[in-house]
Amino acid sequence: MDEFALIARIRERLQTAAPRVRVGVGDDAAVLAPSAGCAVLSVDAVVEGAHFDRRWLSWPDVGWRGVAGALSDLAAMRAAPVCALLSMVLPEDLAGDDALAIVDGAAEAARAHGASIVGGNLARGPVVSLHTTVMGEAPSPLGRGGARPGDGVFVTGTLGAAALGWRLLAKDAEAQGPFVRRWRRPRARFDALPWLAAATACVDVSDGFAQDLGHVCEASEVGAEIDLAALPVAPDHATVAAASGHDPHLLAATGGEDYELIFTAPAPPAPSSADVTRVGTIIEGAGVRFTAPDGTPWSPPAAGHRHFR
Amino acid sequence: MDEFALIARIRERLQTAAPRVRVGVGDDAAVLAPSAGCAVLSVDAVVEGAHFDRRWLSWPDVGWRGVAGALSDLAAMRAAPVCALLSMVLPEDLAGDDALAIVDGAAEAARAHGASIVGGNLARGPVVSLHTTVMGEAPSPLGRGGARPGDGVFVTGTLGAAALGWRLLAKDAEAQGPFVRRWRRPRARFDALPWLAAATACVDVSDGFAQDLGHVCEASEVGAEIDLAALPVAPDHATVAAASGHDPHLLAATGGEDYELIFTAPAPPAPSSADVTRVGTIIEGAGVRFTAPDGTPWSPPAAGHRHFR
Repeated sequence: MDEFALIARIRERLQTAAPRVRVGVGDDAAVLAPSAGCAVLSVDAVVEGAHFDRRWLSWPDVGWRGVAGALSDLAAMRAAPVCALLSMVLPEDLAGDDALAIVDGAAEAARAHGASIVGGNLARGPVVSLHTTVMGEAPSPLGRGGARPGDGVFVTGTLGAAALGWRLLAKDAEAQGPFVRRWRRPRARFDALPWLAAATACVDVSDGFAQDLGHVCEASEVGAEIDLAALPVAPDHATVAAASGHDPHLLAATGGEDYELIFTAPAPPAPSSADVTRVGTIIEGAGVRFTAPDGTPWSPPAAGHRHFR
Repeated sequence: MDEFALIARIRERLQTAAPRVRVGVGDDAAVLAPSAGCAVLSVDAVVEGAHFDRRWLSWPDVGWRGVAGALSDLAAMRAAPVCALLSMVLPEDLAGDDALAIVDGAAEAARAHGASIVGGNLARGPVVSLHTTVMGEAPSPLGRGGARPGDGVFVTGTLGAAALGWRLLAKDAEAQGPFVRRWRRPRARFDALPWLAAATACVDVSDGFAQDLGHVCEASEVGAEIDLAALPVAPDHATVAAASGHDPHLLAATGGEDYELIFTAPAPPAPSSADVTRVGTIIEGAGVRFTAPDGTPWSPPAAGHRHFR
């Protein structure tokens, strides 16, 4: 398919009729109707070679991960999703159907989270990359800087599952199952926004619990005491992790890309939810201190050279 | 410089205090105070190899072009600029100072146009690319679809200058002068927004006058008659173009990346401006028809294979 045909087919796929969207894909820019809330904006990228390997993700998975990962930053700000824009780089030798499959996965993720794709750009380059900008709105956005000593530290869902899935794929590109799916098809936790009503700070788990909670501590000028055994994990996390030679606690404490929310609050959400776990307490000081199940201090191995994320 | 140091230095450069910006670079997402106008959003990319060659642009020029080109789409929607987000891909072997130079050029362009850079992302990849998302606001956004038979076709500034500059560089990477500068440092025409008060449609010149006016005609379901000799060009455009073996009319009619505005309106802007030129008339029908200075029909050579833009 030639490039004009590809652009036309992408546009067809992205025609959406959402109440806020006055002009979507096809003009110089998208137009959103005014809103009473603050506009919340973030951009995230997935780059072939740096963030994914074609053997481990289908093209729709690439699109899904790009959009869901970007949207998660809105959830972390206590913002509801509105729209997304996709800037794609496609190698000359990528088939048109593969490009459409990326768009389909991106559109599926947007729809699943209640957002519309309203614009984008296509460019040629040596590897596939997808740069997703998202806009949400929030009556009262929540940053990282409001945690106070005495606040509880809470986590949604389970930790370490995406990192475990990634490791299963690294060992066997044909691996399947719930952990692999958690890495391939993450979900932004907009469903958790009601639990953040009294939260003082929030961040999403993209770089790993320890590092992301560290960002909250740094921005809030506080420390945190965390009970390693309290970190919530999936039912068979420990057995699957151990069977593949990985430390289940280490995965839970440092595994990235779960896109769960870590938040601090003076009291647990009410009504309580089985999907929210208290894992520790904010203290005066600095840094995140873990206590191992045997009561001794625990620290993750020093993070080495980190690629841009 | 290591990656954490680079990120810290980029953040320092992007600290801005603009009235609408409640949270800028550094949290999960940026927060903009509510606005009564519509939000207008667009994304554009510059990719090494596809859009630029390191010999022809300094790193600050790359940043400038990325931001100015993206902002131009807001001007084309009759929107005022608010903010920009940068998603950058940087090769491992790019020096940290070169990355900072890109950011400096981007920040300079944002400032020059009255926008703030409020967020971004860094990733590793084989070639430099810069994906710029811009948000503006407009009490009354203007699309491409409102041109009516009888409307005049107007153009701001001069056409073909950026394309001529690009050709001068292609012949001699050391070329300098106003045409080269027009290509390296384009400006989005927010200063022209007052002239659009009674406009019926607008587009910016990114792909070339003929193609961009064609988008207006297609969206508006009209045609256009254009006087080739009326296309405004810089004072020494004809002599410099001819001296380098290029057809000055062809450059004006088809040269891209001028980022001037083409608009249609039932009457010229009042008060009139020397920087707005009437070049033709909207008619019933379809397509853009040019008349050469000798009164005969003229058409640009058929556009060949077009890379994504």
